[in-house]
Amino acid sequence: MYKLVLIRHGQSTWNLENRFTGWTDVPLTQQGIDEARQAGRLLKAGGWDFDVCHTSVLKRATHTLWHCLDELDRTWLPVVHTWRLNERHYGALQGLNKAETAKKFGDEQVLVWRRSYDTPPPALEPTDPRYEGSDVRYAKLSAGQVPLTECLKDTVERVLPYWNEAMAPAIRAGKRLVVAAHGNSIRALVKYLDGISDADIVGLNIPNGIPLVYELDADLKPLRPHYYLGDPEAAARAAAAVASQGKA
Amino acid sequence: MYKLVLIRHGQSTWNLENRFTGWTDVPLTQQGIDEARQAGRLLKAGGWDFDVCHTSVLKRATHTLWHCLDELDRTWLPVVHTWRLNERHYGALQGLNKAETAKKFGDEQVLVWRRSYDTPPPALEPTDPRYEGSDVRYAKLSAGQVPLTECLKDTVERVLPYWNEAMAPAIRAGKRLVVAAHGNSIRALVKYLDGISDADIVGLNIPNGIPLVYELDADLKPLRPHYYLGDPEAAARAAAAVASQGKA
Repeated sequence: MYKLVLIRHGQSTWNLENRFTGWTDVPLTQQGIDEARQAGRLLKAGGWDFDVCHTSVLKRATHTLWHCLDELDRTWLPVVHTWRLNERHYGALQGLNKAETAKKFGDEQVLVWRRSYDTPPPALEPTDPRYEGSDVRYAKLSAGQVPLTECLKDTVERVLPYWNEAMAPAIRAGKRLVVAAHGNSIRALVKYLDGISDADIVGLNIPNGIPLVYELDADLKPLRPHYYLGDPEAAARAAAAVASQGKA
Repeated sequence: MYKLVLIRHGQSTWNLENRFTGWTDVPLTQQGIDEARQAGRLLKAGGWDFDVCHTSVLKRATHTLWHCLDELDRTWLPVVHTWRLNERHYGALQGLNKAETAKKFGDEQVLVWRRSYDTPPPALEPTDPRYEGSDVRYAKLSAGQVPLTECLKDTVERVLPYWNEAMAPAIRAGKRLVVAAHGNSIRALVKYLDGISDADIVGLNIPNGIPLVYELDADLKPLRPHYYLGDPEAAARAAAAVASQGKA
């Protein structure tokens, strides 16, 4: 049996301000740091250990991982950074307040943008200063790989090659992986691993800073439903809070 | 011309307590964190950028690197951890107070242990709880590679293969390297790069948390003497403070 741990980053400054973040590289709040530390303590208390870490190129995920590794006394573990684990790109909504956007466009439209599987938010113009096309961390991507916007389907399509080419082979080789990533890159993995339909993934929310565990068989199919470490009710409350962020 | 930046970690808790540290994995003090942040700000102000980072498997170096990368906004850079960049192993002196050890054995004996090129401090017994032989981070080392003690000559002999096999080829391939390491693993590199004699290396001290720059030609020979970023007098004062640590 293989185990895999996924951790959504702790609260970021734009989570706190209820703004659409996407690929914008904002830091953790103090609460987010505390959540990351608590995730590390939960892993430590459960006797978890790892061989390699995967994270995005965004600091809220990297910092979450670093705080976890500190608590685990594993600051020396190898860490692989990939843009493929980045948050879903939020297009022209990046930086906007979620509740204000809901007031302007209506709860229903914002829920579509936030949770529709295949309807992306309005795209950034390539001339928009928010466009990440000239960011050095994406310099090696091919034309078109730096998104102007993404729906979850787009995120799934760029996360899964990383699962297939980097994560799954490592797990099969016996490496114990911990992944610090984002709400939607984790939803992409959960959708794939649990075989969740395009319709049902809309209702699934990932809480910040709580380790999510998969137990996988030799074919990397889940042996039991994924679960959260720690208090299940706290995880459920945190997921419900994520779900309500987009309401006016 | 190639450039290479070496940074000794900021002040650790055992630097503050004036204890021999070696491979003991102690954290930074708040001053050490501030020094690491300042190193990052110096690099940022100078327009420095990097492609890959190398550090030890000890948290005082890793944390120093992380704080620098935070200040540089480069938290997504690849980081390679290696035991070969660890501090010199201090044998049975690990954990002892430097001044008390000097009172007991005399300044001269402690200076020999601290700075002699080829006289190691008393060795740990393999049964000593301080021996790192069962530490998981050294599990892949061959028998005899986890030291019981080291003189600087021993440290040079395990640092140089890493220079030759990992760092030098990367520099020649055009990668800009930043290395966060330790007083003696950095002295090993400086001794090699500057061609310092076994006798003269005794008098060379590396200050904590100040970026040390090499400008290297195509054969990786220094084009000019290595230098510290920031205020040269501050670097000289910090180096002198290191030199005086072992006195009763």
